[in-house]
Amino acid sequence: MLTREDCLQADLQDPLAPLKQRFELPDGVIYLDGNSLGVMPKSARVRSAEVIEQEWGVGLIRSWNTADWFALPARLGNKLGRLIGANEDEVVITDTTSLNLFKALAAALRIQQQARPQRRVIVSERDNFPTDLYMIQGMIDFLQQGYELRLIDDETPLEAALDEDVAVLLLSHVNYRTGAMYDMASVTALAHQYGALTIWDLAHAAGAVPVDLNAAQADFAVGCTYKYLNGGPGSPAFIWVPPRHQDRFWQPLSGWWGHQRPFDMAVAYEPANGIRRFLCGTQPIVSMSLIECGLDVALEADMEAVRTKSLALTDLFIELVETRCKDHPLTLITPRDHDQRGSHASFRHPEGFAVMQALIARGVIGDYREPEVLRFGITPLYLGYADVWDAVDTLKDILDTRSWDKPEFKQRTSVT
Amino acid sequence: MLTREDCLQADLQDPLAPLKQRFELPDGVIYLDGNSLGVMPKSARVRSAEVIEQEWGVGLIRSWNTADWFALPARLGNKLGRLIGANEDEVVITDTTSLNLFKALAAALRIQQQARPQRRVIVSERDNFPTDLYMIQGMIDFLQQGYELRLIDDETPLEAALDEDVAVLLLSHVNYRTGAMYDMASVTALAHQYGALTIWDLAHAAGAVPVDLNAAQADFAVGCTYKYLNGGPGSPAFIWVPPRHQDRFWQPLSGWWGHQRPFDMAVAYEPANGIRRFLCGTQPIVSMSLIECGLDVALEADMEAVRTKSLALTDLFIELVETRCKDHPLTLITPRDHDQRGSHASFRHPEGFAVMQALIARGVIGDYREPEVLRFGITPLYLGYADVWDAVDTLKDILDTRSWDKPEFKQRTSVT
Repeated sequence: MLTREDCLQADLQDPLAPLKQRFELPDGVIYLDGNSLGVMPKSARVRSAEVIEQEWGVGLIRSWNTADWFALPARLGNKLGRLIGANEDEVVITDTTSLNLFKALAAALRIQQQARPQRRVIVSERDNFPTDLYMIQGMIDFLQQGYELRLIDDETPLEAALDEDVAVLLLSHVNYRTGAMYDMASVTALAHQYGALTIWDLAHAAGAVPVDLNAAQADFAVGCTYKYLNGGPGSPAFIWVPPRHQDRFWQPLSGWWGHQRPFDMAVAYEPANGIRRFLCGTQPIVSMSLIECGLDVALEADMEAVRTKSLALTDLFIELVETRCKDHPLTLITPRDHDQRGSHASFRHPEGFAVMQALIARGVIGDYREPEVLRFGITPLYLGYADVWDAVDTLKDILDTRSWDKPEFKQRTSVT
Repeated sequence: MLTREDCLQADLQDPLAPLKQRFELPDGVIYLDGNSLGVMPKSARVRSAEVIEQEWGVGLIRSWNTADWFALPARLGNKLGRLIGANEDEVVITDTTSLNLFKALAAALRIQQQARPQRRVIVSERDNFPTDLYMIQGMIDFLQQGYELRLIDDETPLEAALDEDVAVLLLSHVNYRTGAMYDMASVTALAHQYGALTIWDLAHAAGAVPVDLNAAQADFAVGCTYKYLNGGPGSPAFIWVPPRHQDRFWQPLSGWWGHQRPFDMAVAYEPANGIRRFLCGTQPIVSMSLIECGLDVALEADMEAVRTKSLALTDLFIELVETRCKDHPLTLITPRDHDQRGSHASFRHPEGFAVMQALIARGVIGDYREPEVLRFGITPLYLGYADVWDAVDTLKDILDTRSWDKPEFKQRTSVT
């Protein structure tokens, strides 16, 4: 596929192409950052007016019952669960990914404390998204029970990090920077061989790649709704806990929403049976409600078709960059092997930051990640083949003309 | 003030009356539940369209910088701080009240661990809002360091509960059920005499009564934005930490938003200087943004004028109920003394639940709290004297005609 005309032809034959109409896409933008903040489903406009003007403005407190706000975390959790191989009543949408990691880690450590009480090592990855590492460090420091964090990296592969001291293995299914993807089933099986429990961070996986948590026999999972699921900026996150672990421990963020009968106003905490005990406090209903708009579009698409298109678009993107921009110092850091890749492609470039600012100024929005990494998210629900052509065309022009080499593109004010 | 005409006259002379126009109030409703979910500021309609359609829909990822989403927790926190006696950079809006309690309690316990390491008692109140008690219980269970919860109640007054074993005193400034209010300064001083640190839950105080955290020399405070501050359903909560405590400990919910340089993507957690270390993960931007609408109206009103009107309306409400409904078994459980009362009034009635459902069916919306309590929130920004008259008039009619005595009003389906 080497011409723009070829790409247009591919778009015409794309079974997912009609879904693009379900999203609001600003004029003049090719959006390759749906893995940081997904775009707005058109239905969010109507839904937000309903929630804000009707449910809040008119329904007021009555909407906890009449608009069923109370059920939102579980109801939307069940919808989301269908995208990640979860059964009913295994997922709630609530709080943030960081906080859900804390709950999952607390539960996993407590289960191990009962089953394998001498274990004090939590394994994660040096290149994991920082908040995963920070939440582990916060818990270790807080518990003061001799836990330690062991990081896998180039020198210490996973196999070398696992041993009889490991209580928990906490990994991101798809790496936020490189796009590298683990085989969840085999890694989980390996961890279980060593007696470790697994926690999977699905931030860059849910809605992006096929995930089957139950088939993989994973132990816990958390993730984000505002990336590939298009839930809106900072929309609440999710946590998955299978029934075999749900009732074994009440996680320490035990607010009233996790109580078995929250409106009894009882003095003693009594954890709800099942997944509801992973709830804590009152959720931001407006942001929470809008998640449903994105979930509904995602559920219309066949996940295997999404994966097929994601791989095709990513292959195309890599091929076009490597052929059309071959005179420039771009180095692919994303695995080429389909089985080891999520849904984004990342290249290093010595002036990566400035190149990305120049791209954004031209309407090709990806993002920059330390160090030197240009990251391009591939979102099959609203990206087409010609979009990929045009994005690379703009990148080639910026590199050929060195138009990134301007002071305004080198100023580090960006925060995301 | 004994006639409806008197009430209408009082409304005409009310300096806060014009603010009522800033809120959306549904037809046929007298809303006495603003202490559970505040009403919608009219500006929320425009603001939500901006945030959703422009900032998310068009700005997309760029809005973290261009719409300054990144600064929202601190910027709105500073606005809120002016209502509770906080200085700049002492408040952030983030997460939920329950989670902020966990952070405050973790920090307070760690400070005590260094200063007074033998202390293992956390004092709270049996009648505190349950989530406060549940978060304490969750932390005690999780830490396994021998902490215990000691509850003050009718048999154990505050003075009897404080001793040299107490690490932390955690109280609600205004009780959610009775409306009883503590004198924050004297209670804090008493706690400090015993070497205990204080955490104040301002859920029913912020925006409702004058609060001066710094004058009271409080140690930590948390609270809610969706009640008297009209932030929207489940809008994120706040936490206040004064500079003398801010940098003494990094609280264990140490996500990337609390890092000194979150976008360095460093492996090691380095807590931000100041109040930002009490942030954890990415916040729900739509729900967060709408908080500003309510804050802006609250900041227009003089807090002393709000308090004066609150007391006048509550006095009127109590007087009218006790005179006009005197033949019915209603018992005031709210303190009559102005110094000991927040901004709601509660009455017990043996059929409280059914009476409240009958009131709601007639458009007088208060709420019910176990056991047998009819709770009426008084919100001076949008309630007037004639509203109070009309509410009591409806209550009197329902009681006189026993119209609460119907099966549909006795069915316990309400969740809030």
